[in-house]
Formats: sequence, structure tokens, C-alpha cells
Amino acid sequence: MERQGFVVTPWEVEGEVDYEQLIQQFGLSPLDEAVLERLRGYTGELHYALRRGIFFAHRDLDWLLDEYDRGNKFCLYTGRGPSDRNHVGHLATWRFVKWLQDKFDAALYFQITDDEKYLFRDDLNTEDTRSYAYDNILDIIALGFNPERTFIFLDTEYAKTLYNQAIKVAKRITFSTAKAVFGFTNESNIGEIFFTSIQAVPAFLESIRQGRNVPCLIPLAVDQDPHFRVARDVLPKLGYHKPAIIHSKFMPGLGRGGKMSSSDPSTAVYTTDPPEVAAKKIANAFTGQQPTAELQRKLGGNPEVCTVCQYYYHFFEEDDGKVEEIFEKERRGEILAGEHKKDLAERVVRFLEEHQAKRERAKGQVERFMLRD
Amino acid sequence: MERQGFVVTPWEVEGEVDYEQLIQQFGLSPLDEAVLERLRGYTGELHYALRRGIFFAHRDLDWLLDEYDRGNKFCLYTGRGPSDRNHVGHLATWRFVKWLQDKFDAALYFQITDDEKYLFRDDLNTEDTRSYAYDNILDIIALGFNPERTFIFLDTEYAKTLYNQAIKVAKRITFSTAKAVFGFTNESNIGEIFFTSIQAVPAFLESIRQGRNVPCLIPLAVDQDPHFRVARDVLPKLGYHKPAIIHSKFMPGLGRGGKMSSSDPSTAVYTTDPPEVAAKKIANAFTGQQPTAELQRKLGGNPEVCTVCQYYYHFFEEDDGKVEEIFEKERRGEILAGEHKKDLAERVVRFLEEHQAKRERAKGQVERFMLRD
Repeated sequence: MERQGFVVTPWEVEGEVDYEQLIQQFGLSPLDEAVLERLRGYTGELHYALRRGIFFAHRDLDWLLDEYDRGNKFCLYTGRGPSDRNHVGHLATWRFVKWLQDKFDAALYFQITDDEKYLFRDDLNTEDTRSYAYDNILDIIALGFNPERTFIFLDTEYAKTLYNQAIKVAKRITFSTAKAVFGFTNESNIGEIFFTSIQAVPAFLESIRQGRNVPCLIPLAVDQDPHFRVARDVLPKLGYHKPAIIHSKFMPGLGRGGKMSSSDPSTAVYTTDPPEVAAKKIANAFTGQQPTAELQRKLGGNPEVCTVCQYYYHFFEEDDGKVEEIFEKERRGEILAGEHKKDLAERVVRFLEEHQAKRERAKGQVERFMLRD
Repeated sequence: MERQGFVVTPWEVEGEVDYEQLIQQFGLSPLDEAVLERLRGYTGELHYALRRGIFFAHRDLDWLLDEYDRGNKFCLYTGRGPSDRNHVGHLATWRFVKWLQDKFDAALYFQITDDEKYLFRDDLNTEDTRSYAYDNILDIIALGFNPERTFIFLDTEYAKTLYNQAIKVAKRITFSTAKAVFGFTNESNIGEIFFTSIQAVPAFLESIRQGRNVPCLIPLAVDQDPHFRVARDVLPKLGYHKPAIIHSKFMPGLGRGGKMSSSDPSTAVYTTDPPEVAAKKIANAFTGQQPTAELQRKLGGNPEVCTVCQYYYHFFEEDDGKVEEIFEKERRGEILAGEHKKDLAERVVRFLEEHQAKRERAKGQVERFMLRD
């Protein structure tokens, strides 16, 4: 899906993403004031990711709430492709998922697509993806999901259940459709081509396990939407509801232009970074401030390009008033890069210390969460 | 794979198959006197299917026997796509597989591809294929395979093991290859495209279970060869030997021109046909005899087109001398269609009575044979 200088596919996000354009291109509904207002009716105060438009689009959220009003509660489904350690951008999405789980008392299916990452990445073997999977799971558990209502699984460990359902999905997807949606070529391997069938299944796992048709809401980063465009066509043919979806923007990285580069780990704070390493990354972050302190004081900076501001906005400051204060200081040149970064670094270090302690405790809890055949 | 009026693919066999041409087309080695002689050195008298050229081609049988000579015993792998009841043509192949198992004391993996039949057949659901699978398995067990050395599995019931290995195969097969070998189009579903990865796995299951590289011999009807052309390219990349293959011709049906039609069950003897139904099918079989008894006595018939003769040849008479006697009588016009069919029908009825009793006994033994996750 390439248009005007950016690419968003499940396997590649490049360029400066124009989210308005993506809404048109993907055929999404904007997460507008009306639907946010309706959500507020169930949850009280909205999560900051909603207030700030970090979750910016949806499919069928109104329908999902109609069902909820009729007493037909929904389940949640999200996932992670375990190709690396997690960074705070992943946690940002999942904290929002936890908020949804808490507010709606929803069962959550958390798919770890180790098969996908093995199939799509030449440089990863099955032991690599499995090892990343279990590392990633510690972060998920550390976020405090309800162990009674959260079901985490590796595709390879739940493959009997998944494959038996995936063939029902696969039978209803032609190569032509897969090619159009995902851009497959003659050189794509046949596991890649099949994979979307596996990713569709968790959207109806709760229906299977409950023996009735349970609505499903999928919070995801917008690059994963193509999988569910296909799944939404197929699931009604199997007797299930189309899953509803809520789409987030990407959290920017620390590099120039908000870049997060998978080949350069210094452009993101990983959950397992030693705090002093993370602090150093913040110290090297791109702020876009003026070349001299004098000029910065005079002209100010731009919070939209300042990755330090953006880290507060996306993850490290939930209070809108405080975010506005930080942005305003940046705009007015009232804070210089050194102090700005030092403040954030302190916040990051504190967060990592706490989160890493929770990760340690999570090690003893993994089995409570896992689904396996 | 269409040439000169016949088609042989894993999903379609049409027209009069020219096996010599298939050897060229598929790049097989003929099962010539030299390799048959070598086999005789291990087995004593050869199985009738070898003596008669019903198994007519191979890949790497010499290599397999070299390995055997070095003390590296091979396992066997064969299978069944459960889209229907079995007919005696299926049993013919499997009796030969049992002979191999007995002669070489080989472990046998027997794959029931219920996923394949579900994916490729619009008219079958997963319950149909599962139900045929367990019906087909009774015939397999009734043939007397060694329960200690025979492992039968449905793909859907062994899917965790199979999928985890199949992704390793799939990663190494491009759509381009799958398209060239199987003739997939844009309209093929993505499960069909993936499926050959699942069919490759049993060729190295024994290696996985034994923790060493075990040679594998796959006896199959020649239409299944394309799957293993692909598998033979991939398996060495996973550290396994290329499987050796031994190819059989198709057993003809009872219709005009030796046709067996899946839409007309009267053209084959099914293992679960009531004996009187089977006798009636034989009574209606095509013999190609002359239009009158007088002319038949005078001109004789042709055993090559007489499906009654062919039924003896392929399945119902293991003694070569007796087959030659039957053929000679047909050639010389010494036996008329009525008597000819009556003799065979008696043989068929006796076989079915015995086999169906064994099927009944097999019902209590299924669990001894099954592999499941």
C-alpha cells in the first residue's frame, strides 16, 4: 500500500505516515467525537490514548457497543510478532488494551505470532522467535492483565487448535485476494501466503470456547489492518461476527524525524534496556531545538518534532495538563535540550526500574496465562 | 501436467496414461531388471506388484539400498486422502507397503490428509473428511500392518507436530515453485497452496522421533509424485535425506476402457460394498469380448482391455501362472463373459467377506495405531 511517500503493510512501515490519508486508503472510520463520547458513557474518563487521538480510527465500534448494550459482551484480541525485544511503543498499545479489559471485563486473547516472524524473516530461526516470544510475554504480564481473563499463546504451541480453524479460513481466501491485500509475489514463500489464516483465528476463539457467537474487538497498530480486512470478509461465512477494530498510530522513535530504526536500537527504549543505557538514549534523542541556547530561548522549539515531547505524549505522561505544560515550555524556549532530556530520562529510568521488577515477578506467573494444545 | 491426451496431477487423473512417457515427463528412473534383481537379494521372491511392473518407476532406490547395506535402515511413508470409501485399488498399493514393512522390518508413517481433502473439495466439510478418515483406517488396519511399527495419523489430529515442521518446509518453497509444480492459479485458495508443506513432513518424522537422519521410502501412486519432487528439493536444506520413492500405476476400474469414475461407484469394488453388490458390479464389468459367444470362441478377447482380467492381474490373483492361464483363456476365446465374471465375482465375494470381518476386528484396534498431538 504505497501512496505519496509512505508505506504501511503488516511487514513494513516506511516514510511519514499520513493518518488521514490512511483512513481513506484503508476505508476506516475516524474515531470522532461522537463515538468517543459514547465510549465515555461506559468508561468514565477516557484513556489518554483516546483523548489524544493516538487511537484514531475504527471499524464497527458502534456495532460492538450496540451488542454490548444488548448484553452481548465482547472479547479482546491483540498480538505481537516476536522478532525482537519489546520497546515502550508496544507497551503503549497494550496498556490501552488493559484499560479496555478492565473497563469492560473482557476476555483477552493475546497471540504471539512466532510462526509469522519465522516465515517472514530470513535471519530468524524457530528458536530465535520462541525465545523472543517468552521474553515479550514477560512484558505483557508485567502490565498487570487479569490472569483469569487473559489467554496468551504462541502460534507454534497452540498450532493444533489454530491450524484446524485456519484451514476453514484459508479455504475461503484466494491467492488473488491475498496478493491484492498483502502484495505477495511469485517469490513469496507459501507459508507467508497461508499465514493470514492463522492470524484470523483468535477473532473467533472465544466464540468456539464459549459455544456462542461472541463479538470481538481488536486493538492494533494500523499496519495490521490488512489481515483483518480479509478476516472480516471470511468470518461471517463461518458463522461468526466480523471483528470490530480500533487502530492506533505508531509511537515515534528517538531519531531525527521521529524515526525508530530496527537496525539501530538507540532509537527506541526497550523494556529490558539497563536504565543507564536508556538514559543515554534519551540524552542522544533528537529534539529539533535551535542550534544555540540563545536562539532556542528566543525562537523556541516544536513539540511535534521533538522526540522528547513525543515520548511524554505517547507514554510517559498521562496527565494532559502536564503534557501541555511540557509542550508549552518547548514552544516558548523555556527549557533547553539538556534539562528537557534529563527530566525525561529520570522518568524513563524510574519506569524501567519498576517495570523490570514486575518482569522479574512475571517469570513465576507465565504458566497462569498460557494456552497450549 | 498435460501431454498428449492424459493428465496426471495429485488432484486429477484423466485420459489413458502413458507410463513410459510419464517416466520422461516426471524424470523418474524405470524399475528395471537390475534394481529388481538387487531387491530380490533382500526379499527373496518379489511381490507380484513388482514382478508385473505395477510398481514401475522409482527415485533413488539404489541409494536407499546402499544406506541399508551400511546398516542405515529406512522407514516407509504412504498416505490416503480421505474423500471417499476405499476401493480395492487402494488396498493393492497398501498390501505392497505391508510386504515392504515385513521384509525390511520398517517403521511406517501412514498420513491421512483430511485437511487436504477439505481444502481441495468444495463438497466436503471437516466432518465428512474425518468420517472418511476413520472409515479408511479400518481398511488399513485390516491389512495386518505391524501395530508396533505402524503410525497412522490424521493431519488435523497431529496438526501441532505437523504445522511446526511444515513451516520449515514452507519457508523454502516459493509460490512460483508451487505454481509450476501444481498448476495453482489466482483462484486457488491459500490453504491449497500451503498444503504440500504438510505432506512433506512425514518423510522426516522418523528422523525427528529417532533424533538421527533416517532414510525414507515412499510407495505411492504416480500422481502424488509432484509433492515429493518439491519435498526432495527442500529436505536436504533442513538436514534430512531426500526421500526415495517407488511409483505405481493406477488400478483400472470396471468401466469401458478400464475407467474408474468417482461419480459412478459401480466402476470400482469398494471395501465396504455388500458382497452381493460387488458381485453385481462384476457382472456389469466391461470385458471387451466379441458381440456373440460364437465370435468370442472364434476370435477370442483381449486381456489388456478386459477389466475382469485386469482385476485378477492387479489384485485378485497373486500367482503369475494362474494369471497367465486366465489371460490365455481370454485370448483364445475359451471362456465366455458370463463364466469369466462369475469366477471373479466368487473371488471378490470371498475376499470381501474375509476383509469385512477383519475390518470389524480392526474397530477395537484403532487406538494402538494412532499418532496424535
